[in-house]
Formats: sequence, C-alpha cells, structure tokens
Amino acid sequence: MIPPGLERELADVVGARFVLTRPGELLAYTADGLPGYRHDPALVVLPGTREEAIAVVQLLARRKVAFVPRGAGTGLSGGALADGTVVLGLNRLRRILEIDVENQWAVVEPGVVNAHLSRAVAPHGLHYAPDPSSQSACTIGGNVAENAGGPHCLKYGVTVNHVLALTVVLADGTVVTLGSTTGEVAGYDLLGAFVGSEGCFGVVLDATVRLTANPTAVRTMLADFPTIDSAARATSAIIAAGLVPAALEMMDQPTIRAVEASIYAAGYPVDAAAVLLIELDGAAAGLDEEVARVAGACREAGAREVRVATSEADRQRLWQGRKKAFGAMGRVSSHLVVQDAVIPRTRLPDVLAEIGRIGREEGVTVCNVFHAGDGNLHPNIPYNGNDPAETQRVERAMVRIMEACIAAGGSVTGEHGIGVDKLPYMPRLFTEATLGAMCRLRDCFDPERRMNPGKVVPMRSCREWAMAPAARG
Amino acid sequence: MIPPGLERELADVVGARFVLTRPGELLAYTADGLPGYRHDPALVVLPGTREEAIAVVQLLARRKVAFVPRGAGTGLSGGALADGTVVLGLNRLRRILEIDVENQWAVVEPGVVNAHLSRAVAPHGLHYAPDPSSQSACTIGGNVAENAGGPHCLKYGVTVNHVLALTVVLADGTVVTLGSTTGEVAGYDLLGAFVGSEGCFGVVLDATVRLTANPTAVRTMLADFPTIDSAARATSAIIAAGLVPAALEMMDQPTIRAVEASIYAAGYPVDAAAVLLIELDGAAAGLDEEVARVAGACREAGAREVRVATSEADRQRLWQGRKKAFGAMGRVSSHLVVQDAVIPRTRLPDVLAEIGRIGREEGVTVCNVFHAGDGNLHPNIPYNGNDPAETQRVERAMVRIMEACIAAGGSVTGEHGIGVDKLPYMPRLFTEATLGAMCRLRDCFDPERRMNPGKVVPMRSCREWAMAPAARG
Repeated sequence: MIPPGLERELADVVGARFVLTRPGELLAYTADGLPGYRHDPALVVLPGTREEAIAVVQLLARRKVAFVPRGAGTGLSGGALADGTVVLGLNRLRRILEIDVENQWAVVEPGVVNAHLSRAVAPHGLHYAPDPSSQSACTIGGNVAENAGGPHCLKYGVTVNHVLALTVVLADGTVVTLGSTTGEVAGYDLLGAFVGSEGCFGVVLDATVRLTANPTAVRTMLADFPTIDSAARATSAIIAAGLVPAALEMMDQPTIRAVEASIYAAGYPVDAAAVLLIELDGAAAGLDEEVARVAGACREAGAREVRVATSEADRQRLWQGRKKAFGAMGRVSSHLVVQDAVIPRTRLPDVLAEIGRIGREEGVTVCNVFHAGDGNLHPNIPYNGNDPAETQRVERAMVRIMEACIAAGGSVTGEHGIGVDKLPYMPRLFTEATLGAMCRLRDCFDPERRMNPGKVVPMRSCREWAMAPAARG
Repeated sequence: MIPPGLERELADVVGARFVLTRPGELLAYTADGLPGYRHDPALVVLPGTREEAIAVVQLLARRKVAFVPRGAGTGLSGGALADGTVVLGLNRLRRILEIDVENQWAVVEPGVVNAHLSRAVAPHGLHYAPDPSSQSACTIGGNVAENAGGPHCLKYGVTVNHVLALTVVLADGTVVTLGSTTGEVAGYDLLGAFVGSEGCFGVVLDATVRLTANPTAVRTMLADFPTIDSAARATSAIIAAGLVPAALEMMDQPTIRAVEASIYAAGYPVDAAAVLLIELDGAAAGLDEEVARVAGACREAGAREVRVATSEADRQRLWQGRKKAFGAMGRVSSHLVVQDAVIPRTRLPDVLAEIGRIGREEGVTVCNVFHAGDGNLHPNIPYNGNDPAETQRVERAMVRIMEACIAAGGSVTGEHGIGVDKLPYMPRLFTEATLGAMCRLRDCFDPERRMNPGKVVPMRSCREWAMAPAARG
C-alpha cells in the first residue's frame, strides 16, 4: 500500500533515522494497550517539529497514503493500530510551549505526557484535571483524540471540558485553529466535534488546555460493603443527595484481591464484596460536613466501615491501588480483557448483578473496577489466552456483558473510544441515519478517509452514506 | 422565493390557522431581541406536534425551500431572522416529556421555556442550570441553538455541558439521535457539533437535558468599588485564588444608575464606580470560609464595602437588578445596543479602560453589565435611534469596542452567537482555512444550505470552500 519512494521522501523531511521500516523497529507499533489485536504498519514516521509534522501530512496527502496518528499507544480500543499503512508518531513533539498562570491555561505539543503537564504547573498551585489511569505515560494529543476521562472527571469533566483551543493539520495538509483561549466558541463548534474523533479528523499540532487550581483541601474515604448491591445503592444515594465528589470509584472483590496480592497493596479489606473510594475536595470547612454526609449515605446503604485517609501518604496509597488495579489484574494471569461501558447510574445494582451472573455461567472471573459516580463500568477478565476454550468463553462473556449494558440503556464506551474493538456494536447503538451523519461529519474533515481508516464507524455505513447523496437529490 | 402552492401544502400538514402569511401576523417575526434589523419572512409555519414538525421539514426539503427555525425570538444576534424565507416556529412544542429524578435528567420539547423547566423540577430539589437573563421567555430549543450561557454558567458551564442527547430532524428530513442519556459519547461527537450551531444544522425535536441538584446553601454578596479597575482586579484575584463562585457579575456606574432609576431598583450604591455581584454555593459550613476569602480579595483590591444578602428576599432583590439591567437601560432612551464579547479575564482592567476611552471620544454612554468571572463583556449603549448623527457615533463606538476585544485576544461573542450581526467580524477572527472548515461542517448536516441561510459564516468563505475541493484533488 506504500507507494515506491515514499520512505525516501519521508526521510528527506524528518531524517532517515526517524523513518522506521524494519520489523524489529515496527514491533512496538503493532499493538496498543488493548490485547488481542495485532496490526502491522508499513512504516512509522516520527517528525521532530511542528513544521516537519505538517510537511509529513502534506506529503502523505500528495501521495494519497492513509495514516494513523499515534501518541503513547496506551489506548484501549485498538484506535492507534495501522494495518499496512503509515503510523505518524507524535511523541517527539513534547514541548510545553507556554504556561499562563493568571489565565490558567497552557499550550502544549501533542506528545506531552499528561502527568508531566501537571508536574510542570504544580509550582503554581495548578494541575491538569483529566487523569486517566495511564496518565504517567499517555499524551495530551492521545487524550484529545480519545476525549479521555479518569477518576476525577466526575467533578471536573472529561478532556473536552479542558481543551480551549487546538491547532490541527487536516488530512489535506490545511492547518486550522479550532476554539480560542478564552474558551468561548464563535461560529460552529469545530473544537467540540474534533475532540474525541479518534485520530480521524486531523493531527493536533498544539493544544491550549485549561489548568485547574489545586483544591485547598481534600478528603479521601474508603467505604467497605458486604454486597455489591449495597455499594451500588450508596453510589446512587450520594449523587441523589446532590453531593459531587471529586471521584467516586468502585472495586469489587476479585479486583481488591488482585490489588492486595500485588506490589500495589493498598490495605483494602479482602473480605469486602466491594469498596468505594470516594474523594471530596474544596474549602476545608465545608468538607467535613460533606464527609459526614457521604459516610452517612454509605452506612445507610449497608457499609461495614467507612474510613478517611489520615495523611497524604495514606491517601496516595489508597489511590495507587485503584490506579494500578489493571496492572495488578494483569499479574493474575497471562491475558486480560479491559472493557469499558457506561450505563445509567441507577441501573448499577441490576447490571452488576447481571454481569456476575454472566461470569458464573461462562466460568470466568469478572473484575469490576470503575467510575461508579458516572456509571462508567470497567468489567475486566484475566484469563489464559493460550487456552482456546477459555478464550472463547471470555469473548462470549464480554459480548453478553456489552449487550446487557446496551439493554440497560447504556453505551459500549465511556472513555476508551470505539477504535476497532467496539466497531461491531455501533449498528446496535445507532440507526443507519445517525451512522450516516457521523460519516458526513468525518468527511467534512477528511473527505478522502485517509486518516485512521476503518475505525469508529463501520465501513458499510459509510459506503451506504456515500451512495445516499444522489438519492437525496 | 416561496413556490406556488406551498402555503396550501403546509396548511394540509399543520392546519390553515398555523400558517401565517398576513403582514399583521408576520410582524412579530420580523425582529428578534436585537434592535436595528428588520427582515420580512415570507410565511411562518407553526407545527403542533413532533410528527407535524418532521412533515414540515420534509415538505420544505421536497420543495427546496430555505427556512429559519425559531423559538421565543429573544436572541441578540439576529440569528432567528428570515429574509423572504419560511420561519419554522417551534413554540407549540412545549411539553416536558419525561423527568427522571434519580438519574437527574429531563426530556423536553424545543419550545419549553427555560424557567418553566426549572419550575417543574423544583419539587424534586432540582433545577436546570443555564440561566440566561431571558430565561423567563427563551426556550430550550433556542438555548441549544445558541449554546446559551447565563450568570451561573461560571461554575456550572454553558448549555452544551447540560445537553445529554438530542433528537433532531436534519434539513433533508432525516431524523437522527445525537448523544445519549448517560452523557457519554460513542463515535464522533455529533452532539458537540450541533449545540451552538445557530439553527443551521437541524431542528431539535426533543432535548434530554441534565438537571442539577439545588445547592444546600447559597451566599450572595455585593461588593462596592471606587474604580472599575479595582473591581476588575478583585475579579482576577478571586479566580486566581482557586475560588469558583457560582456567579461573578460586574455592573458599572451607568448601569447601576439605570437600575436604581427603574422599578427594578436593587439598593445598589449609586456612587460606586462598579459593583460585583458574587454568589457562592455549596455546603453551608464551607461557604462562610469562602465568603471570608472573597470579601478579603475584594477589600484588598480596594472595595469600599462588601455586604452579604441577609435573606432570600434580599438575595432575590440583588439578582433582580442584575437580571433586569438590560430592561432598565432600555428605559433610559429609545434605543439600546446590546453587545457581547469575551476577553481573557486578566485583560479586564485595560479593556474596560479602553471601552471607557472609546465612549468618551465618541460621546456615547457605555453601560457595562457582564459576566466578569469568565471575561464575558456586555458593553451596551442606550441612545436615540431617531438621531442619525448619534446613531452613527454609537455604531462607530461599537465597532471600535469589538476591535479592542479582538486585539486583546478575545472574541466577538461569548454567548449571543454570530447570527447576522457578527458576520463581518468572522474573517478577522478566523483564517479562510478555518472558515472553510466551518462550511464543511455545516455542509455535512445541511449540504443544500437551506437552514438559516446567510448566518454564522460569511457566504464568501462558503463559496470559496465550495470551489476548493476540486483544487484540493
């Protein structure tokens, strides 16, 4: 699929050592954070400056070559995989270009690592709020592509709420600015459409992101529940009471046990059916009242114990268990399916019961660790991928779990995106008319469909849409 | 522009009395909330049900007739004006279809009045957060089209943050669902693109909007400043301290005097150069600490007095002065220009000084009443529109003020939209490439450009874009 001479032309732009073509060099780019898929790119090109990135996109446009933009490759839906096409790696564009402390924003290149930005602005009492579990590795460019979430997005909102402006290069090489540093949108909201477009609409050259003042005080609580149902009911009660915790996370027993058996042991009660990790932040005086109300809601729902972290070290430990839970599960067995779905919060008790039932029927262990406050589930299954029968049971369980979420009025992704992994579910979630509208939206940024081809919207829907305009007169 | 027989065909759909064609009937539709423009629609059609609305849009698609969707017509950028085309009035679709108290959302028809929704959910301790000053009249459909803001959007976010899902009929008659009640987006963010598209992308048939729990406690403060500059510095200091007031509004002396001379007199100090109206909400215990910090920041910046509303009646009175300030200014003279611009918050002191200078030089009185917390200015000028010389001075002052905002890194609209009024500024704010991208975005919803034609993006840019694809290969 790569036209002759392209490698050389790319090398002329970025230098020969930043065009990777040997199998050993490409290996790291054949997968992303999602197990079970392997796609072989034809080559990887790594521009070192904004100008080089633009020149590469323009060259690919002239040669009509499809390409996949990629950040740190921590995504969990196969969105950064390239099948026989070019990977445009953006990790070398990793400068923080500007920090405006007074107006609370920063301009960063796409390859800046999420946690590095928060670290850079910490001396000013600021941080970048969206905090995916991969924040020590994932990049702001990737976060924009996936509209990444994280535990603290319950109170602070996901990536789209923190991006003020983007400079992007479209597939045809045009450079456009979307949004503005004041955060107000004039004209149509190109920025809103772009964030979360999974690398199909353009390549971010720089992002102006909102910085958030660190809260004056934080309280982190761990509530221990004898049943999953009681933890789910506590979640609903907290939200219904009008409390807005900074984070409200649930972990079930298999997850707790995996964490406690790992180097990330956080002192979670291993006999609990579920724990809630709840964080409140704001002004110190008000927090104690809120802590009391949250604790009351937990106890009323049946919590055996509610404790508040006694020190920053204690708090960090409670959070580390949660943030490294996927890693801890990965240690339990050779393979791990990491899932992502979202359901109305009030359906948590019955959907979690249904997930438990599916796990038992299929003979697999489902570990639930998730953003309970916004109904964003992460049902994960550790398994032995070398056992075909077990693998098949895991796949069947996952499909049944996704179907249960859809049946409960939910969706197949809360924050990980569609990528290739969730493509088959799109026709169940959306009508052909809506999928057609998505194709039209895509076509307005990349009419040749060369960016991240085959992702997000099933090709069939796009083909039907392509035939439709004539019929529409 | 209206093909023969259309009136009759529309009458077949909605009933003859809901197709308005006589000049007297059309008069109310020749203007919106923005003075200075008058456009005569060819006819107005008022569907009474969702099915009728769809049938009307499909009929207009078959007959290839341009149309302008319209809610209450309170908009302030001329966005709901129709020049020789059809107005599709949506006021009759005013049912609240569903209220889900536990999951905190409601499904409403587009003609539901903003304040009516909050009133309907008040018994459940909930409200709809975006609160434009026109909330007693403006509709949710219009709010979606304009991505409306309001004083409390500083803390709670503008309309797009409160819309979970929309069912819309596109210009070609296709009905699509955008977003989902869980608030998570799967696939491209059609919803994000749609909100704020000023009636150019489709007609809302129903909107699923987030409901917000009423805060447990509220403190409303009025701070009195001897100079505009000190009030602006207090604003920056409050935000920089990491405090997030529910609202942070500024009114200058001409505004204060207009309010105090009206029936909405709120007890504002008429000798103050500016007042800040600041509201804090949250848990009661924490609020007093925050009130003390805000008061400290105001005094440090030079406030002469800071008082806290002593009762709900006192609070309502303070707010009424602010919410009715435009009305109070309207009483001062026969005409009023209501403007809208946004600047980086830290530029408030110098831009306000510049606005004062422009007013003095042009010999006009600029009344500033605005959302200081997010840098969203509303410089307004009461004047005698029957005096051509004065009118010309007002127009010149407004252009100079907008230019000063752009020069300060700002934008020409914070929440009122582009409509027809701000069209001339678009090429100053955006490159041709970005305007072209906006046209493409528009074309993916309404390729025939029949919805709200001539608004938002200058036609010239769209024509150039239309010529571009061939050149782009």
